[in-house]
Amino acid sequence: MGTRWQTIALTSKKKTDLLDITEAVSGACQKAGATEGLVVVYCPHTTAGVLIQEAEPGLLRDLEGWLSRVVPPDEAYHHNRIDDNAASHLRAVLSGASVVVPLRGGRPALGTWQRVLFVELDGPRERGVHVGVIA
Amino acid sequence: MGTRWQTIALTSKKKTDLLDITEAVSGACQKAGATEGLVVVYCPHTTAGVLIQEAEPGLLRDLEGWLSRVVPPDEAYHHNRIDDNAASHLRAVLSGASVVVPLRGGRPALGTWQRVLFVELDGPRERGVHVGVIA
Amino acid sequence: MGTRWQTIALTSKKKTDLLDITEAVSGACQKAGATEGLVVVYCPHTTAGVLIQEAEPGLLRDLEGWLSRVVPPDEAYHHNRIDDNAASHLRAVLSGASVVVPLRGGRPALGTWQRVLFVELDGPRERGVHVGVIA
Repeated sequence: MGTRWQTIALTSKKKTDLLDITEAVSGACQKAGATEGLVVVYCPHTTAGVLIQEAEPGLLRDLEGWLSRVVPPDEAYHHNRIDDNAASHLRAVLSGASVVVPLRGGRPALGTWQRVLFVELDGPRERGVHVGVIA
Repeated sequence: MGTRWQTIALTSKKKTDLLDITEAVSGACQKAGATEGLVVVYCPHTTAGVLIQEAEPGLLRDLEGWLSRVVPPDEAYHHNRIDDNAASHLRAVLSGASVVVPLRGGRPALGTWQRVLFVELDGPRERGVHVGVIA
Repeated sequence: MGTRWQTIALTSKKKTDLLDITEAVSGACQKAGATEGLVVVYCPHTTAGVLIQEAEPGLLRDLEGWLSRVVPPDEAYHHNRIDDNAASHLRAVLSGASVVVPLRGGRPALGTWQRVLFVELDGPRERGVHVGVIA
C-alpha cells in the first residue's frame, strides 16, 4: 500500500484545446501495478484543468463555446493589466484542477462514455499532469 | 488498509432530478468497516454528477433553475445533431463527477447542512454511483 | 500508512472573502509527517468552498466579480424565503467543497502559481476546513 506519482507530458496546439488523455492515464496505472484503489489526475497549472466527459467532437466544440460565453473574453478584468489571461484563469475554476477515478482491476474504472480530458485554456503550451495511484 | 468499492443503484424520476443519497453513502461506509480515511463518491455517467450541498427543497429548485440559465437548453449545440442532450453534458461539467468526504469514526464527516446529492441531468433513468472507502 | 485529519480554523472578514490558506495546509502536512501521498482539503460549509488558483489580487477581484455575474444576487430564489443566501449556496457549487493535491517530499506539490484558496461566500464568519493527509 502506498502512493505512486507519475507525470504525463502534454503539448497543446491551440488557445483552447481539449486533449483526451485517457490512454496515458491508463498507461500510468499499468506502470504503477496496483489493482484496487484510487487514481488521481492533478493539473499543476492555473490556466488549464482536467475534467471527465464524453469526447464526442461536437460536444467538445460545445464545451469550448460554452466556456467562452460563461466567462466572456472581453470583460474589464483587473488581472489583464498584468497578464491578459484572466478569462483563462476563471475558466480553469470551472474545469477544476483534478479528477479522481476508481482503480479497479488495475485500470481506471471510467463509465462507458467517460474520458479524462486535459483542458488547455491559455495555449498553445508545453504542459504536464501528475497521475497518482493510491492503493 | 486498502480500498473497498461498492455500487449504489439509483432511479431518477425526472429530466433533472436531485437525489439525496447521504444515507446510502453512510450505509456503504458502515459495510466497509473502516474508521479513519476518505470516502469517494464517483458518478460513472456523463449526463449526471454528484455534489455536496444543503438539501433544502427551495434551494434544490434554485439549483435546477440556475443550471438551466447558465447552460440554456436551446443553444445551437453541435452535439445535439447526435444525441440532443448537449446541455445535460455541460451541466454535468458544473456538478462534477465525484466528491470526496472525510471518513471519521466510521462515518462520512459531513458538515451540519451538507448532504451528498446525485444530480440527474438527463433522466429519468436507472443510474449508479460507486462509493470507495480508502482507509 | 493511514489517514490523519486536522482542522484549520479561519475567520472571514467580508461577505465574499478569498483567503490564501496554503501555508496552513503546508503546516498540517508537516505535522502529519508523511512524505508521499495525497492531501485533501475539505470544506464542511454549504456557503463556502475551496479551490486552487493563483492568488494575484487583481485575479481575486475578477473571481469575485465573475461569481456575482454568473450567480446574480437578485434573482427570485426560493431559498431566500428561508435564509436569504441562495446565491451564496449556488456560488459554493461553483467553487466546490474540496480539493486534492499531491503530497511529495512531505509537502503539497502545488504548481508554480497555485495556491489553496478558501472561498467565503456568506461571511463574515468563523469557519474551518479539514486537512487530510493520506499516505
